[in-house]
Amino acid sequence: MADANRRLRLGMVGGGEGAFIGAVHRIAARLDDHYELVAGAFSSDSARGNRSAQALHVAPDRSYADFEVMARAEAARDDGIDVVAIVTPNHLHVPIAEAFLNAGIHVICDKPLTTDLALAKDLGALVKKTGLFFGLTHNYTGYPLIRQAREMVQSGVLGQIRLTQMEYVQQWLTEDLENYDNKQAVWRTDPKQSGPAGCVGDIGTHVYNMMRFITQLEVDEISADLTVFVPGRRLDDNAHMMLRYKGGARGALWSSQVAPGNENGLSIRIYGTKGGIAWSQEHPTILRHSPLNAPPRILTPGGPELGQSALAASRIPAGHPEGYLEGFAQLYSDFAGLIRAHMAGDATAEESRLAPGIEDGIDGVRFISRAVESSTKNAAWVKFAD
Amino acid sequence: MADANRRLRLGMVGGGEGAFIGAVHRIAARLDDHYELVAGAFSSDSARGNRSAQALHVAPDRSYADFEVMARAEAARDDGIDVVAIVTPNHLHVPIAEAFLNAGIHVICDKPLTTDLALAKDLGALVKKTGLFFGLTHNYTGYPLIRQAREMVQSGVLGQIRLTQMEYVQQWLTEDLENYDNKQAVWRTDPKQSGPAGCVGDIGTHVYNMMRFITQLEVDEISADLTVFVPGRRLDDNAHMMLRYKGGARGALWSSQVAPGNENGLSIRIYGTKGGIAWSQEHPTILRHSPLNAPPRILTPGGPELGQSALAASRIPAGHPEGYLEGFAQLYSDFAGLIRAHMAGDATAEESRLAPGIEDGIDGVRFISRAVESSTKNAAWVKFAD
Amino acid sequence: MADANRRLRLGMVGGGEGAFIGAVHRIAARLDDHYELVAGAFSSDSARGNRSAQALHVAPDRSYADFEVMARAEAARDDGIDVVAIVTPNHLHVPIAEAFLNAGIHVICDKPLTTDLALAKDLGALVKKTGLFFGLTHNYTGYPLIRQAREMVQSGVLGQIRLTQMEYVQQWLTEDLENYDNKQAVWRTDPKQSGPAGCVGDIGTHVYNMMRFITQLEVDEISADLTVFVPGRRLDDNAHMMLRYKGGARGALWSSQVAPGNENGLSIRIYGTKGGIAWSQEHPTILRHSPLNAPPRILTPGGPELGQSALAASRIPAGHPEGYLEGFAQLYSDFAGLIRAHMAGDATAEESRLAPGIEDGIDGVRFISRAVESSTKNAAWVKFAD
Amino acid sequence: MADANRRLRLGMVGGGEGAFIGAVHRIAARLDDHYELVAGAFSSDSARGNRSAQALHVAPDRSYADFEVMARAEAARDDGIDVVAIVTPNHLHVPIAEAFLNAGIHVICDKPLTTDLALAKDLGALVKKTGLFFGLTHNYTGYPLIRQAREMVQSGVLGQIRLTQMEYVQQWLTEDLENYDNKQAVWRTDPKQSGPAGCVGDIGTHVYNMMRFITQLEVDEISADLTVFVPGRRLDDNAHMMLRYKGGARGALWSSQVAPGNENGLSIRIYGTKGGIAWSQEHPTILRHSPLNAPPRILTPGGPELGQSALAASRIPAGHPEGYLEGFAQLYSDFAGLIRAHMAGDATAEESRLAPGIEDGIDGVRFISRAVESSTKNAAWVKFAD
Repeated sequence: MADANRRLRLGMVGGGEGAFIGAVHRIAARLDDHYELVAGAFSSDSARGNRSAQALHVAPDRSYADFEVMARAEAARDDGIDVVAIVTPNHLHVPIAEAFLNAGIHVICDKPLTTDLALAKDLGALVKKTGLFFGLTHNYTGYPLIRQAREMVQSGVLGQIRLTQMEYVQQWLTEDLENYDNKQAVWRTDPKQSGPAGCVGDIGTHVYNMMRFITQLEVDEISADLTVFVPGRRLDDNAHMMLRYKGGARGALWSSQVAPGNENGLSIRIYGTKGGIAWSQEHPTILRHSPLNAPPRILTPGGPELGQSALAASRIPAGHPEGYLEGFAQLYSDFAGLIRAHMAGDATAEESRLAPGIEDGIDGVRFISRAVESSTKNAAWVKFAD
Repeated sequence: MADANRRLRLGMVGGGEGAFIGAVHRIAARLDDHYELVAGAFSSDSARGNRSAQALHVAPDRSYADFEVMARAEAARDDGIDVVAIVTPNHLHVPIAEAFLNAGIHVICDKPLTTDLALAKDLGALVKKTGLFFGLTHNYTGYPLIRQAREMVQSGVLGQIRLTQMEYVQQWLTEDLENYDNKQAVWRTDPKQSGPAGCVGDIGTHVYNMMRFITQLEVDEISADLTVFVPGRRLDDNAHMMLRYKGGARGALWSSQVAPGNENGLSIRIYGTKGGIAWSQEHPTILRHSPLNAPPRILTPGGPELGQSALAASRIPAGHPEGYLEGFAQLYSDFAGLIRAHMAGDATAEESRLAPGIEDGIDGVRFISRAVESSTKNAAWVKFAD
Repeated sequence: MADANRRLRLGMVGGGEGAFIGAVHRIAARLDDHYELVAGAFSSDSARGNRSAQALHVAPDRSYADFEVMARAEAARDDGIDVVAIVTPNHLHVPIAEAFLNAGIHVICDKPLTTDLALAKDLGALVKKTGLFFGLTHNYTGYPLIRQAREMVQSGVLGQIRLTQMEYVQQWLTEDLENYDNKQAVWRTDPKQSGPAGCVGDIGTHVYNMMRFITQLEVDEISADLTVFVPGRRLDDNAHMMLRYKGGARGALWSSQVAPGNENGLSIRIYGTKGGIAWSQEHPTILRHSPLNAPPRILTPGGPELGQSALAASRIPAGHPEGYLEGFAQLYSDFAGLIRAHMAGDATAEESRLAPGIEDGIDGVRFISRAVESSTKNAAWVKFAD
Repeated sequence: MADANRRLRLGMVGGGEGAFIGAVHRIAARLDDHYELVAGAFSSDSARGNRSAQALHVAPDRSYADFEVMARAEAARDDGIDVVAIVTPNHLHVPIAEAFLNAGIHVICDKPLTTDLALAKDLGALVKKTGLFFGLTHNYTGYPLIRQAREMVQSGVLGQIRLTQMEYVQQWLTEDLENYDNKQAVWRTDPKQSGPAGCVGDIGTHVYNMMRFITQLEVDEISADLTVFVPGRRLDDNAHMMLRYKGGARGALWSSQVAPGNENGLSIRIYGTKGGIAWSQEHPTILRHSPLNAPPRILTPGGPELGQSALAASRIPAGHPEGYLEGFAQLYSDFAGLIRAHMAGDATAEESRLAPGIEDGIDGVRFISRAVESSTKNAAWVKFAD
């Protein structure tokens, strides 16, 4: 008899020794105790992969050098993985996801989904065909106050939305670190691994996704000016964009990795006819809400007047800050609930789903594509829809 | 014998009962005690003007109903005014300035200089011809830390400038106050009095001027998207812009009067190859300086490591906040020094002049014109220079 | 016939070349244009005093070397001063105030009133006897949001007050500046000029006064621990205090001039059964109000929900910061209104008086005396009342 | 052969359904993957305990109703627990710890150690006798910037320490929640479960411990004024204290649970002859460092100039906030390293130990005892040492 309470069996592709985001996924998976990591293809270098497996308490016979082998082998086991987490560089996401979907295994995938819009859509069709769960780790939507923001917009507290000011700004590529063997810099500035966009794909897509999550506004057309500031760099390290939404709202988006003083400056401000809100990732426990003609109010996780979705995303009382890892873990916990619902044949869970999925992934790739297209046309307005 | 120490004799046009900015100019003129107000055409309604004169301790025979009469009469007196302050709605600035310049009287003028670029240039020619002093009250450049910012950019502390992020955002026109007899709203949304731009001319021009003051970057081309959000309003209440500077730097500018939660949100962030700075008018005693690869530092007026121009613009020790009125007064004090130098035939003072003048005025009108032009062309890139 | 509208004629004792607080008083007097400075005994060194008079546009025959001569001479003139501002070191306040009161002239006096409680009470009796106006420049009570705080406490918004947390903390005496010819440091650490208390009298008394102004709580007993940290210093440069109020409320007060990182760190937090408020002088345009069981709200000068007394103390719209000088000027403007009422024989103005007077002065000296007394008794509880 | 890499086997006493801090301990233990929870006496109600065990994936035969039975049974197993976490109310900590220590099992214990100083010392003797590991979860010392602060003080960056300003302030007991069946409020205001102190023991002890961790200053004498504000409450809900340290430094400590607007307001400021630092738990990613005569600097986890101990306590790059749970997890990870060292017979790890232990526990109980003693003597100075 199945143990309804058991932890989900998790596999991972990528995330071996020295990787960054793989370790984050594992912490996120552990934090709320819904998963156990039991298999992995942690590296294409099998010795390195095996060392990682051992360090991660994964049995030697479930440490794979090849993700396709892994997909087939795990699918064949009685105690095979329920879900795989894909944490490789961006250009590998799609083929790996396809292998596991085709093997009947649910998928959690890092963002951006891929670097090519057609590939993204193909994957979308496959997800639909297989009926399997697909989760995308746009982790910043796991913050309680981002969910609060969404609730406030949906409930009409802000009135009709007029403006969205989006920023995701960092400093770490102000100098040409890619020429000094910084691995994170090397792959992020390499078109082969990152696709046609640099900071737009790496971080701009996060704040775009956050805006969509909160407001559900649809972009009508976009004007983007992508710039390379560091001599010799091959992908944009700065982007300014203007957005026109369907229905008349307007937006601006600034994404940069050459802005000294900004560690991880993801922020969003949204203004409507009845009020405004402002949130910054570096101080994620504050949501400033300014009702029209009344003093601004400071909302905090667990504090007074929080909505259900925000309360559900907090683990500890008000004043005890949760941060990046908890936000990431929230997605993993949401995913677990959705996967269990899938396994139980319960389709209703998907209806109230907050956690990002394949459509968000396709939308993000579309955003990147449109931004690049506009920029190559001297920032001309480009229609967003296909 | 002339009293070298005497206060400058100040006249004023506009600023009668119920006006806002006239009272600010008067406080600014009084604060450092360089002026005495002795004459005025405070209102085109002579009874109203005379009541204002009495309240302001101006002698009845120097209360004028007509600015041209005032210019001639004051020019004819032995104790006539040294300088006039023009604080009327924008479209009247130029004819009044011309009248006083032609009468040989120095001029201080509120911003924007005018609503029409050709008029602005004509006035520029007149200023040059007369050789008189002309001061424009882009008051925000009087804040000590804005002068500090300028010193830092000039001295190379930030390296080569790459990015300027400019905002001037307010909330007060979120609703259609112009339909409820709010006088400030009425004239600011009326094309006859304000010219072809709304929030761009009213406030956008301030942050553009601040960027120019600090960085001296020249705009090569500009793309602007002006929007009217409030139904029935005749001028833009929101603008997004992208700027390309000569030399390759980039900028973004957001100006709005429909953003709830923003009282007077003028802010600027500047990033170069060696560091970044950030300043916000609502908390003007903080300049955040982030040197590359070192912790951010908080500079304060009167605090350690401040430059000469910033120290000269503070009246009281560190920790005793000075604000909007002191910044405004700083311009008036700078103007006084420059006027005295003019009167003494000393041309050197102009060489190190910080206070804005006619060229800044023309530049500001050009900014407004170019922004409007780009927006009418669907935000196409427009060359900035004539 | 008297000109009801005329500016008040102001004299000054102290405040000559190189003085700090005298210049502040003069700016404060000018800012709202209720005064003209027409006489002064700016220095006991008559040459220095005369130079100051000339620089300040005071006629030579009204520049005095001796305050007693000044009091008599001005009292004898038809156009003699209405009011004198006393801006000397603390130990001279009382004799100067006596001279002018005895000459029938209203008095504005810097704080603290004096260094000796008996002297303070004697002066109080003289003020009462003469029926003249006496104003004390506890300038921080002139900030709009401090008046807002007072209104909120009085109206019961915070419920019954339980706690007051007071701080006035600076850094500037962390080292022994008094040994390096810093004049401000020399007199402030000299018992002959400053009396028996150092930082307690210089700054602690300000935050005590602010607490009294806002809450009107009366201290029942006080325990104070005064410390001298800098070797060789003769007066306390740090003080910790605990206060018990009548009715059961409690407080703590920290005053220091040896706390690096604090420029002028005056702050107050007040908590009652229904809510709390917090304010800090270095960012004076924010009053954080936390109603019980609701999100904290940010009140600003000129912003929504401000009370009458706060609105009356703002000159410019919300978002345009006013600071230390405007707060100081507010007291001078309040004083002007009260003096005019005195001159008009109108006693009702005093009934709604907000500006500090002789009783506040006596109360402040009592606070200093009790703090010193407690500290000399090893911080034993000392009854506050006489 | 033992698996050097295996996870430590963890048991837990307390922390069943509905408990708060037990769930926090479990997250902390999971986060860095050093432990697996394999046994527990989660509740004295055995049905409740068994339900908790099942939910936590603990085998039925290792779910115990009695901690003494658990200690003996686990000690007898080959795969018995390596360490037990004690997360019961305070008065049970000592007997449970004794049972496991006597069974040869390492102990992790929540704070405060106990409510009685003699009991605390007895336990200290037992820890010493058994030679086993004892860890106390003063979790706030796990924050990276608190470790940074400690490094800075130790290295002399701040010079000789003069002042420590400590606060731990909350709002949640402003009303009498203990009369409305709030379980957290009930036991925290019950002398039988919490001992002789309320907010002093619950939260004051945390900030005292933090001061000790950072500065290693020793208290010479203490004056404490404990107050009960809420009618009918049996333990202090507010405390003001003054501290005199050996060597002449001074401190103030404010602990309260009746201060509206403070969710979990733990903060510390430390000032020395060469600089000051300030940190607040609600925004734990900022350490403000103010060197004397230089601008304040903002230190962040993972940012420039961080010391080794701070870097070792961060999991993710600068700008990605870690919070309360990560700080708690840091202690668990430190404990794991120390326990492994114990198991390997390596005594050197203890020498550089940062994580709190039995001596910190005794010290905390002493702090509570002295504070209560002083308060019962009308806040008289009480010697701190035995």
